[in-house]
Amino acid sequence: MYKAPVEEIAFTLKHVAGMAEAIDSGLLGDLGEDLVDAILAEAGRFATEEIAPLADIGDRQGARLSNGEVKTPDGWRDLYRNWAAGGWNGLTAPEEFGGQALPHMLNVAALEMWNSGSMAFALCPTLTMGAIEALNVHGSAALKEKYLARMVSGEWTGTMNLTEPHAGSDLGVLKARAERRDDGSYRIFGQKIFITWGEHDAADNIIHLVLARLPGAPAGTRGISLFLVPKFLVNDDGSLGARNDLHCHSLEHKLGIHGSPTCTMIYGDGKFGDEKGAIGWLIGEENKGLACMFTMMNNARLAVGMQGVAICEAATQKAIAYARERTQGKAPGWSGSGMSPIIDHPDVIRMLLTMKALTQGSRAIAYACAHAIDMAHRANERREYWQERAALLTPIAKSFATDAGVDVASLGIQVHGGMGFIEETGAARYLRDARIAPIYEGTNGIQAIDLVTRKLPLSDGKQVRGFIAELKAIAEAVRSSNLDGFGATADRVDSALADLEEATSWLLARLAEGKSAETLSGATPYQRLFGLALTGCYLAKGGLARTAEGAGEGRIALCRFVAENLLSETAALKDRVVNGADSLAAARAVLA
Amino acid sequence: MYKAPVEEIAFTLKHVAGMAEAIDSGLLGDLGEDLVDAILAEAGRFATEEIAPLADIGDRQGARLSNGEVKTPDGWRDLYRNWAAGGWNGLTAPEEFGGQALPHMLNVAALEMWNSGSMAFALCPTLTMGAIEALNVHGSAALKEKYLARMVSGEWTGTMNLTEPHAGSDLGVLKARAERRDDGSYRIFGQKIFITWGEHDAADNIIHLVLARLPGAPAGTRGISLFLVPKFLVNDDGSLGARNDLHCHSLEHKLGIHGSPTCTMIYGDGKFGDEKGAIGWLIGEENKGLACMFTMMNNARLAVGMQGVAICEAATQKAIAYARERTQGKAPGWSGSGMSPIIDHPDVIRMLLTMKALTQGSRAIAYACAHAIDMAHRANERREYWQERAALLTPIAKSFATDAGVDVASLGIQVHGGMGFIEETGAARYLRDARIAPIYEGTNGIQAIDLVTRKLPLSDGKQVRGFIAELKAIAEAVRSSNLDGFGATADRVDSALADLEEATSWLLARLAEGKSAETLSGATPYQRLFGLALTGCYLAKGGLARTAEGAGEGRIALCRFVAENLLSETAALKDRVVNGADSLAAARAVLA
Repeated sequence: MYKAPVEEIAFTLKHVAGMAEAIDSGLLGDLGEDLVDAILAEAGRFATEEIAPLADIGDRQGARLSNGEVKTPDGWRDLYRNWAAGGWNGLTAPEEFGGQALPHMLNVAALEMWNSGSMAFALCPTLTMGAIEALNVHGSAALKEKYLARMVSGEWTGTMNLTEPHAGSDLGVLKARAERRDDGSYRIFGQKIFITWGEHDAADNIIHLVLARLPGAPAGTRGISLFLVPKFLVNDDGSLGARNDLHCHSLEHKLGIHGSPTCTMIYGDGKFGDEKGAIGWLIGEENKGLACMFTMMNNARLAVGMQGVAICEAATQKAIAYARERTQGKAPGWSGSGMSPIIDHPDVIRMLLTMKALTQGSRAIAYACAHAIDMAHRANERREYWQERAALLTPIAKSFATDAGVDVASLGIQVHGGMGFIEETGAARYLRDARIAPIYEGTNGIQAIDLVTRKLPLSDGKQVRGFIAELKAIAEAVRSSNLDGFGATADRVDSALADLEEATSWLLARLAEGKSAETLSGATPYQRLFGLALTGCYLAKGGLARTAEGAGEGRIALCRFVAENLLSETAALKDRVVNGADSLAAARAVLA
Repeated sequence: MYKAPVEEIAFTLKHVAGMAEAIDSGLLGDLGEDLVDAILAEAGRFATEEIAPLADIGDRQGARLSNGEVKTPDGWRDLYRNWAAGGWNGLTAPEEFGGQALPHMLNVAALEMWNSGSMAFALCPTLTMGAIEALNVHGSAALKEKYLARMVSGEWTGTMNLTEPHAGSDLGVLKARAERRDDGSYRIFGQKIFITWGEHDAADNIIHLVLARLPGAPAGTRGISLFLVPKFLVNDDGSLGARNDLHCHSLEHKLGIHGSPTCTMIYGDGKFGDEKGAIGWLIGEENKGLACMFTMMNNARLAVGMQGVAICEAATQKAIAYARERTQGKAPGWSGSGMSPIIDHPDVIRMLLTMKALTQGSRAIAYACAHAIDMAHRANERREYWQERAALLTPIAKSFATDAGVDVASLGIQVHGGMGFIEETGAARYLRDARIAPIYEGTNGIQAIDLVTRKLPLSDGKQVRGFIAELKAIAEAVRSSNLDGFGATADRVDSALADLEEATSWLLARLAEGKSAETLSGATPYQRLFGLALTGCYLAKGGLARTAEGAGEGRIALCRFVAENLLSETAALKDRVVNGADSLAAARAVLA
């Protein structure tokens, strides 16, 4: 059973991601390390003791639709209400609406733990947080006044309605439509698919944010507007009024996250109300809906990255526990009378260390991204620099962590042998749940396109080049530490960064030449190269930090494993970036 | 929907795996290329038209246990009987018992197609074929006379009963016991788990091969005997007699292969018969049971490898079909008015080409392994050389193909985007089914141990060195072909083979020094390195062969993609073998 790794999370936040410096610089207000520890401990307790025990029933039962209403798995309604009562929904929300305005760093750490407990459950607040953010930044004062406090408290949940059957990655072609009414409201019509927690019984109201097109709007993404469409209309006194004309038509039967209802939502077909059309209100300006979505998209992408980290952590814990108990055969050097625990077999050690390394690497990258987001909002200077850093790190955090989630969960099954394939063991659920994360909130291929075509060119490439220069300093610090435990880490990290630098330069040059096929062909290998190099750097940073506190042998040893076993992949990835495009293009015809 | 790639399979058999030369040399008897084509076409038709359409219901319904009897999914009983009526069960079985004594090459090709149609279904005959082989080689004339013909016809199916809860990879500790009776029979007692198709309603009788321990038998693997234990006792006239004292206690709830009943079997608890104890007969000698199992184990491992190939093929077909239909965004160079088919986006091309390359590489390796098995039985000379080649290739075929199955199925989901996560789409089932193959019939980690510690030392390393030398000739042939389409293939393959050679030498040297921790630490990366290098070589061989026939552009282009995009990984893998062991050992403490 999952146990929240509170100490490891706190260490990574403070000593790898930059929270300690931020606190020391006074950028986080009253927040001190003790308070951070206390919040993490309580979040960890809730994830471990309240959420994780209900994960399995959520998977087995799933969300169930009957007469248009979705019943959550047994115990989840109370679980959600207890969670919201703990104030967790408003961790980063504005104080004005009852939130705690704490740093994103804390929130992503808590999100990691909720998701380790149950990814299907944690999806509900993840969506609400995104809706809060979009509404807070772009909504009118009246809308915020009416809706935000109860979304911040968690009394009401939020959703994002983007996807339609023919419009997934490309939202420009969506067909849902909106009509203006004289009273300033709108009527919404259309069908949306894959709506996470689009209907359920855990909260009293559901606030849908819906992308739709107004009459005469420009084609493509410039003609999309964002609307707030509540499940129940809200009276002026805040009480709930009539049911709005929207409903859940069906639930998807999915590979994983069974406890999370994935809904097809129908707006405005006349099922409810006197007149056809779901009543909604504009968020932001007409035809600027996509910009509103982009506001929340970076945070949402990081939140999905946390799902990857979360699955990595939970799957690794489970596999290590099993490998300690399970005995089979005799490992090299085994002198006991019976069989060895399988954790002593070198191949199992390799799998478990790889799992642990990817977990810690993903976590560090994601927390560093959250740190950059916080700095962009709070730093006294260089906010644009931090904004760019957050923008650069977001696709890497999302993609590297979610790919790691799948790989680590799959390795976890392998460590369990035949038992891993049996559902009751629980290892298989991690793979089933993890598999969606590289897809939604922008597929990892789309993250790679974003990284290469929009993030590398930031400040004419100075952001990425500056970042690589900072990372080189870590390798140098390892070198000058003169600690034997690091082995070849300094050289290996240097070499990984040289690969990253060469690939970056190559891509920037091709971008400048407008060669989009070449840049896009190498985007995914480049994204992984970046993530691996960062893993090496951040684990080294952690090893150095721990050394200062005098208890870092384990961290240093894991860092050396990464350096001497995993980082060799960067040369292959760089090669794919700079040499792979031609053969890829030439072989396209094979798929004809 | 899956369509058997008969032409591609025939090409790989004949021009890559060596079947054409074997036919030309007269080693395959009357079998000519036309007959091969006809058999493959009919097998492909059956897989495409009969099996594949029933795969989905098998997954959704699964096998169901009630009152100790297992009901197969709707339609599967007739499907099995039609399949057996086609004579497919006895393709390689001895003619004396109604088989066709055809080469293994043909059988693995057919197995691939059955498994692409439905892996859960194809498992049933796969187990029967293994049982036939063990019985044919080690069974007494009387046992063979009584059982073999009806197993060959498929009227009765067979199972392998090895695993017990505490004895999986390490069979030496199994506890099932057998008692001698005066009439030459034995009584079997114990519990076996994970018994594939251990109970079902598709055949009239089930012949269980059961490993058990006799009183006073030596400890460990030298005290294990193999018994034939039928579900229904067979009278001397061949009619079915009383129910034997064995039954299915429960079915596992698994991640995938739902249509295949995975049974916990209880032997000898008195549920059936007058006296406790399941009646069985010894196969081979007492305490030599494991040797009997090893007879069939190589073929069984290759058969599991075919499951990996099969999933690769089916998942790739499905993903390509979807990527052609699905439109989204605009790909580089797209000049159409609407959206591009996603198959034109470079990142999707990369995924699909990787899937296709792993499919063809796995297939070629597996077929080459089957060719070596055939040559070991049929060649006029150098049979030991071929036996060693088969032994060397088996763990690579099993592990590389089954790892590829998981990776390709996962990529297939990714290509489908959100639809990939929806079960009705069918892409997710491939991942769920594929995930068992790296585990059973010896985990891929155990394959790697076998490869490095038992197969590399064959003939003092001459077998593996000779193989690498043969592979180098392929690179040389590419170079001297002077075909531009191959791009950097010759250099890249040379480089991969140099990595393979260096890693091989390093491992052989450590083996000679008795350094088992070092050799075992690098075993899995080495195994993958070997598989990747073979993929490059065999795709090149195919490209050259096709060129001779004048229509090889596609093959050459795919080979070049492998060479210039995938083979760069071999350097990283070699590095892990020769430099990775120390940091792995040093980090073991992290898992404490």
